Amino acid sequence: MRISQIFSKTTKNVPTDEQAINARLLIRAGFIYKEMAGVYAYLPLGLRVIENIKKIIRQEMNSLGASELLMTSLQPKETWEITGRWNDSVVDIWFKSKLKNGTEVGLGWSHEEPLMVMISKYAKSYRDLPISVYQFQTKLRNEVRAKSGIMRGREFLMKDMYAFSRNQKELDEFYERSKQAYLRVYKRVGLGPYTYVTFASGGAFTQFSQEFQTVTPNGEDVIYLDQAKRLAVNEEVYNDDVLNQLGLDKQALQTVKASEVGNIFNFGSLKGEQMGVYFTDEAGRQQPIFLSSYGIGVSRLMGVIAEHFNDKAGLIWPKEVAPAMAYLIAIGDRPVQNLTDELYNLLTDYGVAVIYDDRDVRPGEKFADADLMGIPWRIVVNSKTITNGQYEIKGRTEDLPEFVSKEALVKRLTGVD
Amino acid sequence: MRISQIFSKTTKNVPTDEQAINARLLIRAGFIYKEMAGVYAYLPLGLRVIENIKKIIRQEMNSLGASELLMTSLQPKETWEITGRWNDSVVDIWFKSKLKNGTEVGLGWSHEEPLMVMISKYAKSYRDLPISVYQFQTKLRNEVRAKSGIMRGREFLMKDMYAFSRNQKELDEFYERSKQAYLRVYKRVGLGPYTYVTFASGGAFTQFSQEFQTVTPNGEDVIYLDQAKRLAVNEEVYNDDVLNQLGLDKQALQTVKASEVGNIFNFGSLKGEQMGVYFTDEAGRQQPIFLSSYGIGVSRLMGVIAEHFNDKAGLIWPKEVAPAMAYLIAIGDRPVQNLTDELYNLLTDYGVAVIYDDRDVRPGEKFADADLMGIPWRIVVNSKTITNGQYEIKGRTEDLPEFVSKEALVKRLTGVD
Repeated sequence: MRISQIFSKTTKNVPTDEQAINARLLIRAGFIYKEMAGVYAYLPLGLRVIENIKKIIRQEMNSLGASELLMTSLQPKETWEITGRWNDSVVDIWFKSKLKNGTEVGLGWSHEEPLMVMISKYAKSYRDLPISVYQFQTKLRNEVRAKSGIMRGREFLMKDMYAFSRNQKELDEFYERSKQAYLRVYKRVGLGPYTYVTFASGGAFTQFSQEFQTVTPNGEDVIYLDQAKRLAVNEEVYNDDVLNQLGLDKQALQTVKASEVGNIFNFGSLKGEQMGVYFTDEAGRQQPIFLSSYGIGVSRLMGVIAEHFNDKAGLIWPKEVAPAMAYLIAIGDRPVQNLTDELYNLLTDYGVAVIYDDRDVRPGEKFADADLMGIPWRIVVNSKTITNGQYEIKGRTEDLPEFVSKEALVKRLTGVD
Repeated sequence: MRISQIFSKTTKNVPTDEQAINARLLIRAGFIYKEMAGVYAYLPLGLRVIENIKKIIRQEMNSLGASELLMTSLQPKETWEITGRWNDSVVDIWFKSKLKNGTEVGLGWSHEEPLMVMISKYAKSYRDLPISVYQFQTKLRNEVRAKSGIMRGREFLMKDMYAFSRNQKELDEFYERSKQAYLRVYKRVGLGPYTYVTFASGGAFTQFSQEFQTVTPNGEDVIYLDQAKRLAVNEEVYNDDVLNQLGLDKQALQTVKASEVGNIFNFGSLKGEQMGVYFTDEAGRQQPIFLSSYGIGVSRLMGVIAEHFNDKAGLIWPKEVAPAMAYLIAIGDRPVQNLTDELYNLLTDYGVAVIYDDRDVRPGEKFADADLMGIPWRIVVNSKTITNGQYEIKGRTEDLPEFVSKEALVKRLTGVD
């Protein structure tokens, strides 16, 4: 993409009320735009990161046999009254509105209840189960404070998956497989080494829920971490009894700040019983459907990646989520520009996403923007390239560039000889 | 996809209050699910149609040089007060809600105003323009009545594009190119021959806006159509003066029912002037930014396709938007099933989307579901296939099947020898 054609512009003006590092960097780099506190639009480069993350998550959810669907934002009151979760004193983050005839409606912040109602109409028999579905959906949550940039917004993109099982054993098996799929997601987006399964509060249903926490200096949570076992305990449930129960040794634990990048809930038969959602088993008996749910905040994950990978010069995207693999700069007159055009077309033909900085600004500004945007490779073509056929290529975190032939350059970016 | 694994089930139970053909068929076929009046979830097969349509639209918008971004659903009151469109008596379809601190917020039903505010921060100079951006975004509109299924919902998916131009000429050129891109979209989704550029009311700004109307028996609109010129006039602006102005002959016009599948608005410099969004031109003068906007209701388009292509047995998807190319049925015991598994794997390896009906139900039910779902090709493998190597293949609208070799079958579905 030629930078003159995409709507993207780095800026030095960050809203004065914006404290979160992720938001400050992403706004400066032209990835997001602040509409209101906790409400951000995704500019073209930001949307590319979101789409890259979605692609990875989608592959992993599909590998579990889950099907993608799309639930609605508008929610009927009746569905949520069944479990008491319509009540603002039970769930204090609802946005609510009204139809023209005065009927109250809610804006979806999660989808357990509507999916249980839906499933009750499609899955009547043991033959119809198990079912697992997921969606990428914009959630609205009326947070009192919204100071963490895209890490806790009032409007955010979530991948939520729901599994409907016939019994606890079937649920537990899917739960374990999902946990592994989640860990693969974090690995693929670059957060693998820093992300830990963490025991957290289970709410009303079970003793624990499980979270995935990424260790990061500005994390909102405090966790007690056993590096060797790759397990952690959220401070909200941290006590001696819990440590004993989980077989963790107090002496081996580090206290660190971390950000939640996913959570999974085992509702067991509770929702089925509460909502009267039953199926007929092999013996003809009515049994409650078992529910588990699995969430990854996609935009939140982008925020955590931004918080985790950056330096003074700007963002540093892991290759699998970067909005482009290379940032291409020509320094010189027409012949240099022609050669750069050629390289741009060649790389594009190979399917490499390239940001071609074709603006009429000085090279220093282009270098600074390449770093600020955090693109993995910076490529420079100049008059020397014409004489010796060598292209300058520099990794985002390298100090010095290398000079390589066009063939070597293509190989570096594509892995293809 | 094996039908046992995807969450999709045809049903005979259509909500009693559902009159629209598109909704009745799509609910019966398991493509959508009614959450509330005018609010539908997209089940896996329905979401595939949506994604196929999005892919086509995305390609055509990219071909215009437009960049994809994603604006927010939550909207600040201040932005819309500038043009007076916050007022419920001016725009009567707002859903509104409140932050915890009492601040009113709206739920986006269109995005001209927020984009003008955003652009004012990024495009200060003629060098920063023209810009065109688009998004696929879930819009909420508080319609009084919602009786047209997914053709006019309270929550729906829209592709909206906005072009920011430096003058009327630049705007007009983009407008014309966009019109052609829109016509290519309708052609590619199968509605080309039935879809016409239609003059409609221009609201407060211009005499006319332009719509794209698809002729269809249950259309909500009435248009006066000149087949030869491929032009139409919406009844809302139909009169002798208008006909004269457009050079249309009353005698040559047919009166037909049609459904709007897109509309484009030429705001000229109006919004720029209203909102004080100016840029500095080459001569250093302040000029208003010119705005045009371009909408296609993606879910609405799916509804119109469903209304347009169906018969007594169910839906008939055009190949480019069909959720799968083939519906695969095995009739017979283990050896037949093995052969069917083999064919399924082969087609999947070729990248053909196949629905494999692996349910334990009688063939008649599978045939009926293949038709109801409207999958372009139905393939049957039975004991004869084992003896003579011939596979049964039938087009959705054909009366009789053909019998072909595996090689011919693959070629038919892939175009590859």
